[in-house]
Amino acid sequence: MNKLTTTEELLLQRRTVRKFRNQSLTLEQYTRLMEVARQAPTSNFLQQCTIIHVTDMHLREQIRAICQQQYVGANGDLIVFVVDLYRNHRICAQLGLADDALNSTDAFIQGMEDTLIAAQSVVMAAEAMGLGCVYLGSIQNDIRSIIQMLHLPKLTFPLVALQVGVPDQMPELKPRMPLNLRSFENSYQDVFDLNHFAQYDEIVQTYYDLRDSSKHVDPFTQQVASKLSHTCFKRNDILKVIQDQGLCQY
Amino acid sequence: MNKLTTTEELLLQRRTVRKFRNQSLTLEQYTRLMEVARQAPTSNFLQQCTIIHVTDMHLREQIRAICQQQYVGANGDLIVFVVDLYRNHRICAQLGLADDALNSTDAFIQGMEDTLIAAQSVVMAAEAMGLGCVYLGSIQNDIRSIIQMLHLPKLTFPLVALQVGVPDQMPELKPRMPLNLRSFENSYQDVFDLNHFAQYDEIVQTYYDLRDSSKHVDPFTQQVASKLSHTCFKRNDILKVIQDQGLCQY
Repeated sequence: MNKLTTTEELLLQRRTVRKFRNQSLTLEQYTRLMEVARQAPTSNFLQQCTIIHVTDMHLREQIRAICQQQYVGANGDLIVFVVDLYRNHRICAQLGLADDALNSTDAFIQGMEDTLIAAQSVVMAAEAMGLGCVYLGSIQNDIRSIIQMLHLPKLTFPLVALQVGVPDQMPELKPRMPLNLRSFENSYQDVFDLNHFAQYDEIVQTYYDLRDSSKHVDPFTQQVASKLSHTCFKRNDILKVIQDQGLCQY
Repeated sequence: MNKLTTTEELLLQRRTVRKFRNQSLTLEQYTRLMEVARQAPTSNFLQQCTIIHVTDMHLREQIRAICQQQYVGANGDLIVFVVDLYRNHRICAQLGLADDALNSTDAFIQGMEDTLIAAQSVVMAAEAMGLGCVYLGSIQNDIRSIIQMLHLPKLTFPLVALQVGVPDQMPELKPRMPLNLRSFENSYQDVFDLNHFAQYDEIVQTYYDLRDSSKHVDPFTQQVASKLSHTCFKRNDILKVIQDQGLCQY
């Protein structure tokens, strides 16, 4: 087997960047990222993802307030990835054909696939260009407001955003769970005795997190427990918002 | 701006491969792909994706029968990407802590993000290694059976699969919708008058599809209409299956 390709190295060495230089993407850089998103694999060739580039400073501030992360909409560029079943609905409507299928969970999942596959393709292209990225799942903190701000119609749903820019930090590689706890052959294996996480817990504790260098880092299992028991999951109306958008009716 | 990096070229030139040589991945190749999946970005550091490598020939045949695509489980390797909230549930249970958050749509979406981001990272690594891939959303044709076959517990959901192998075809680049119909600034734009798809419709018609070279290729708008009006979306119980798995309860 040959040595690693540049692409593999990028993938294996990737870090989330949360601090960017005070510099926006050039039009050429942004256009390339969009070309990559455009060419990304799409489920059933339905192309159910739309991208919104947020350049308006007031809008950026509003989104930052929702995300509660100071780097959102600050240095670099803010890009929102939207599941979009509305465009195909408009096509069907003009052709005078039924499209009830767009209200199904099946269709929504296909749109989510298009959207996340496009987002990850953009992340990889950006990193290959020397840029850094952070995924912003935090737009879900108040997704109804995001829908209003971006004037998103029914049959669309903003899934994730990215902040992309010129890195102004080089975080340590964040250690991931060993493969024997995440990857199985032919059949799922319940191998999750706490003992099996002990070594990984130690590794996580020694990881130096730039976000919080002054603070003690919890072991992985403790992080999971504290994240699932409070704060991070206060977003209880997401299914309702999705269904109010006309999606996932069945 | 510099010329394209290899990674960008890969992303811009990518094609779905559906015909593979009679050759499995080497252990080294497969392990590299798993290392890439392992290192992929993860929402909230919860690492909620699990991967099942389907090597058993009987199981492969059963999955092929569900997918109804002759290349599924045939030449190359079959890999299933599973949204996995069960592992973290087991951690919390052993620590004696509540984890009701795992039943939320918020948590499920985070798991879907991990899963699709890992899958697309694997696709890109595979293509960088000279391999080809096809996404298999078709496992959703009978997802309850897939859950049983792979012995997936509650709080998991198999989202997509990949068939990966040594390419035995070089499809034409499939033309995508122009960016002015998919990418906006600050605000969604309803610019979907059928006229605006006319040129793209022509381009799609001239695309030579290896899957169906003998057949007339419909314009894009016609494809959308025929896909949404019948056949492709007969999978009406997916939300119920997801909820039966204990996911998306609210």
